[in-house]
Amino acid sequence: MKDLTFLTIAEAGRLLRARELTSVELTNACIARADAVEPALNAFITRTPELALAAARAADVELAAGLDRGPLHGIPVAVKDLCATRGVRTTAGSAILADWIPDHDATVVTKLREAGAVPLGKLNLHEFAYGVTSNNPHYGPVRNPWNTGCHPGGSSGGSGASVAAGECFAAIGTDTGGSIRIPAALCGIVGLMPTYGLVSRAGVTPLSWSLDHVGPLARTVQDAALFLNQVAGFDPADPGSATHSGFDAMAELGRDIKGIRVGVSRSQAESVEPAVAAAFETALGLLRHLGALVVDVEIPLLDAGLRVNVLQAEAAAYHARWLRECPEKYGDDVRALLLWGATLTAVDYINDLRVRREFTAQVRRAMETVDVIATPTCPAVACPIDATADGAYRYGALTGPWDHTGQPVISVPCGFGEGGLPIGLSLAGRPFEEALLCRVAHAYEQATPWHDQHPPI
Amino acid sequence: MKDLTFLTIAEAGRLLRARELTSVELTNACIARADAVEPALNAFITRTPELALAAARAADVELAAGLDRGPLHGIPVAVKDLCATRGVRTTAGSAILADWIPDHDATVVTKLREAGAVPLGKLNLHEFAYGVTSNNPHYGPVRNPWNTGCHPGGSSGGSGASVAAGECFAAIGTDTGGSIRIPAALCGIVGLMPTYGLVSRAGVTPLSWSLDHVGPLARTVQDAALFLNQVAGFDPADPGSATHSGFDAMAELGRDIKGIRVGVSRSQAESVEPAVAAAFETALGLLRHLGALVVDVEIPLLDAGLRVNVLQAEAAAYHARWLRECPEKYGDDVRALLLWGATLTAVDYINDLRVRREFTAQVRRAMETVDVIATPTCPAVACPIDATADGAYRYGALTGPWDHTGQPVISVPCGFGEGGLPIGLSLAGRPFEEALLCRVAHAYEQATPWHDQHPPI
Repeated sequence: MKDLTFLTIAEAGRLLRARELTSVELTNACIARADAVEPALNAFITRTPELALAAARAADVELAAGLDRGPLHGIPVAVKDLCATRGVRTTAGSAILADWIPDHDATVVTKLREAGAVPLGKLNLHEFAYGVTSNNPHYGPVRNPWNTGCHPGGSSGGSGASVAAGECFAAIGTDTGGSIRIPAALCGIVGLMPTYGLVSRAGVTPLSWSLDHVGPLARTVQDAALFLNQVAGFDPADPGSATHSGFDAMAELGRDIKGIRVGVSRSQAESVEPAVAAAFETALGLLRHLGALVVDVEIPLLDAGLRVNVLQAEAAAYHARWLRECPEKYGDDVRALLLWGATLTAVDYINDLRVRREFTAQVRRAMETVDVIATPTCPAVACPIDATADGAYRYGALTGPWDHTGQPVISVPCGFGEGGLPIGLSLAGRPFEEALLCRVAHAYEQATPWHDQHPPI
Repeated sequence: MKDLTFLTIAEAGRLLRARELTSVELTNACIARADAVEPALNAFITRTPELALAAARAADVELAAGLDRGPLHGIPVAVKDLCATRGVRTTAGSAILADWIPDHDATVVTKLREAGAVPLGKLNLHEFAYGVTSNNPHYGPVRNPWNTGCHPGGSSGGSGASVAAGECFAAIGTDTGGSIRIPAALCGIVGLMPTYGLVSRAGVTPLSWSLDHVGPLARTVQDAALFLNQVAGFDPADPGSATHSGFDAMAELGRDIKGIRVGVSRSQAESVEPAVAAAFETALGLLRHLGALVVDVEIPLLDAGLRVNVLQAEAAAYHARWLRECPEKYGDDVRALLLWGATLTAVDYINDLRVRREFTAQVRRAMETVDVIATPTCPAVACPIDATADGAYRYGALTGPWDHTGQPVISVPCGFGEGGLPIGLSLAGRPFEEALLCRVAHAYEQATPWHDQHPPI
């Protein structure tokens, strides 16, 4: 049973179309796997096995009749509980929305439905997506399948844990400061933050309008790319939605990476744990071996330690009313961050937007000379759940800057550190160049054993 | 001599090309006119007659040799002192920049130079463009040529007064809350705020990045349109610059306006003086007579009295350092506004941006059913200079909302009110539809006598 749940989406799709497997079998396998591991992981806030089996049965009927909705047809997936689901409660990981049952689907959920994906439920997360541990005070902490005493990263911790543990084949996450890439790295899977505006945020509870991204967590680069293809696209209901035609994240998959220029910003490496630094250097060596050119890039504002509070100000704006009316309903960490954000002045925010624009320009210039920029995803591996309060924010130190520039970033597994916990390699590409980004990440992945290893749980 | 300075740009251009007039003659006429009226008007902060005559001589040589730079070649113009001019001090109407001699030209100044225009000097304005009276505490108040006891409106008051009084043929102004249209209306000339991003702001001292527009004040719609054509265009040095190809504000000039739909938002008329209201109704009747369809439009946020402080917050951000280091150098009114802006929170600003986006969407929807939206430009005619302190802000009540939507707006003379002071008609068009807007304004202008009347000074 475990083997079935660790297929890739591509493999499962082939078996479904060869009639060697049904979506109901696949779905039951995932349900059984979740029955077994959820007591330890707590990755889901709400499971929907009946809805899943009904969708699986429909998928089997359609596929048998020759109606093929594409690569996600019949594939069990799950959705971060920040995304509205019609008729299924959507908590955003909060007490405030504990009883909210939306009358609409988020656009990304609608797209999954139309793609024939099987909805297993709603995934646990850091409260309102505002934190990097997924240590949720209302629904309990999410636990890392590689060591259930450790956190899985966040805010999409349930997405990371469930995909890594074989509870689902892929999951929707959101990323405002690293919330897709951090749990992907700490759980040993792939996380892809797409170009800003590529995937609609309509129906997704905002954290920070100008920084919020929606994207997939999956077990391989190919799975992430084909998932992204299904959910990308312009949506007038999202004011930040981008019009970009002919998008195909799979377009360059399988091509070699000879001559691809990989930029490295040395200044970013300073605060990185030795095991992470070693894994990163090994990854660079392998990329070189595959034909890539590894070169240094200078991004002055990154080197100076980019410090802007755009996220904090926008989060305070979104939460202003609840913060006034029911501050006691927030967890201590999120309330403190929101209150601090509320003290920022308009002048602070406007100046930070100016710094952000200059930083974006600097990165754009740097990326005229390189094709991707590599960093470790996180400076450290996951740490014990009750030890995270102080050092938590370091987990976002290397991911946060990339949310400001709007460019796509992927995290792929690149080894294991202290306690056998996973390490992630981050690759940032140019806007809308997900195809090139996935090509590089896929070439690296296929040359390494990391994605074939599954957590001990 | 006076007749020469009241030619239109088009008429002067014809005479120049017919060798019936030289640019030096035209320039000397403007210089003499300014010598005569400046003691009463104070429209200029810095006059540059030597530079002007040198440029005029060059223009005459070029035109005689058959080198024709287009409709502004040899035409004397002037520039609001907010625009940087290489080697000529640029005060922004402030004490803080009283001694600033830029080493570069604003892009709009470069474009005028390349178009062969003759630079008469730098025009007085409200300090840092932050006010509607041009009652400047450092360089003295600008006075209205129709009644020198009254203000000319602002912030481009020197631009309005100088063009109306025949000191120059057209002038650059800037508009953040009405600063082109208000002085145009109160001085009885044409002011055109172009689509946001159409004219570069590079080298223009900012008031509010997201609201600042640069555009012409002129004596006829045709003059404003041909001036705009010369200064429009993408500029990478302005982060807000728009890429829009094939722009031509003149494209529809002279066509009739039969069937053009003119929207009127009735709620806006409430605070308007009786004489202004009467002139506005007369203007609507004439537009109907010319074949336009006058219909009511509903814009809920406009009807509710749009109140957002985006300008105030952005101005405080730009001025933060000076406000801290030398607050005493500001005039009382500007300092008070800046200090107030500094108290706004990031949450205030972000929420105002959301209101602004919704307002823009409402206007876009309204403009699916009409081609232009008409209002009075100002609710009142100019008032005495020393009586303006309290009621000054009413002058921007009808202009301010349009800066937020980024659409083009033109003000054309539509009559005279109390004390023989001019009244303006405002027409707002769709983004980048300056050609349609100028066509409607031109048709109205050509059917009315207002633009042929000159101030008594």
